[in-house]
Amino acid sequence: MISLVPVAGIPEVRPGDELADLVLAAARLEDFDVLVITQKVVSKAEGRLVPLDPADQDARRRLVLSESARVLRERDGLVISETRHGFVCANAGVDFSNVATGQAALLPVDPDRSARHIRDALRARTGLQVGVVISDTFGRPWRSGLTDVAIGCAGIAAVVDLRGTKDAGGRELAVTEICVVDEMAAAAELAKGKATGIPVVVLRGADRSWFRESSVRAEVVRRYEQDLFR
Amino acid sequence: MISLVPVAGIPEVRPGDELADLVLAAARLEDFDVLVITQKVVSKAEGRLVPLDPADQDARRRLVLSESARVLRERDGLVISETRHGFVCANAGVDFSNVATGQAALLPVDPDRSARHIRDALRARTGLQVGVVISDTFGRPWRSGLTDVAIGCAGIAAVVDLRGTKDAGGRELAVTEICVVDEMAAAAELAKGKATGIPVVVLRGADRSWFRESSVRAEVVRRYEQDLFR
Repeated sequence: MISLVPVAGIPEVRPGDELADLVLAAARLEDFDVLVITQKVVSKAEGRLVPLDPADQDARRRLVLSESARVLRERDGLVISETRHGFVCANAGVDFSNVATGQAALLPVDPDRSARHIRDALRARTGLQVGVVISDTFGRPWRSGLTDVAIGCAGIAAVVDLRGTKDAGGRELAVTEICVVDEMAAAAELAKGKATGIPVVVLRGADRSWFRESSVRAEVVRRYEQDLFR
Repeated sequence: MISLVPVAGIPEVRPGDELADLVLAAARLEDFDVLVITQKVVSKAEGRLVPLDPADQDARRRLVLSESARVLRERDGLVISETRHGFVCANAGVDFSNVATGQAALLPVDPDRSARHIRDALRARTGLQVGVVISDTFGRPWRSGLTDVAIGCAGIAAVVDLRGTKDAGGRELAVTEICVVDEMAAAAELAKGKATGIPVVVLRGADRSWFRESSVRAEVVRRYEQDLFR
């Protein structure tokens, strides 16, 4: 059984805040919990904020392009690009949802490192073995609606061989590799429901064999030359 | 809070079986539960099985092409195509994992209808208001590892506006549309963990406002001409 509990009571996050402390003040953790943390609060804690005039569409586009390694498509003001991390998403992951306040939030420089930092701080303070997933909301081709995916992780496998069985023909090997951190990010989104401003969800019940060192960048980001759709 | 409980004890499914009866014999349901059911057992119950010689790679490819409306990519024996439902996936969703037994399983003809049938049967037998999601395991471009997504649903919204807030500039409207049935399919996969042969997971705690008539085909499948990546 898996349970997903939204963590209420985390205050507005500011640059320099230690997210581990904010989480521990608001939630009671156990061994083998996975904390799914929204990118926006990680970016805020890390000070990844830049001033942006909400009325200046050109400045907005320049910011997106400066965060992009490669533009894949551009139409009607929407830029789909590859970030320096290798993520393909809208607007290079730049979060404009607070832009009315004159600031946009950029993705963390290294979300796996951000996750490790939070996991290490949680472990130092509690001695618990926990996993951390940093989530963001991405679109995808071919299917309408967005889903939350993992952009960084620590202490929990990103991709695991869930089925463990292979077809006699040898062809089904590939389909046993499940991206569990993306599934955790998606599950956590459901637990927030209509509650806005809940930046952390505690996922309990993940298979204990999944707790190991890991990285979204190494395990999930597909290398350019391996991809059939760029 | 969301909980996900795998349903143990469902026997091997055969053509003609009524899945609602098999689920009710194995699980105690409540109002506003969502049943996430693996495609494979739905296809089996509906008799969507075809004979296939596991050694005959040409027959395998012919079967995949016959289930495809349009081939997008083909490389190293892997066909990425669009099914008649509009799903883009490997091998047109044909399940070869039992091919050693001389049979392959095709996708349901209309997975939304399959979901409605199961939901209607559950309601007729129990009077409960439940949602049904039929899940399958798909790859995706740009990210390694597979995740479970919804191929059919009934009684539960496919896409909902979770955030409900719009940027003053009007540009963030699109990013509030969350594909909750895909997130439910992903979450259910986690609950199965390493247990093989668990075809049903009960998701409890979904927002009650999401329970309504719906369809993956109408809400999730993106029309060909609206897609930037075909």
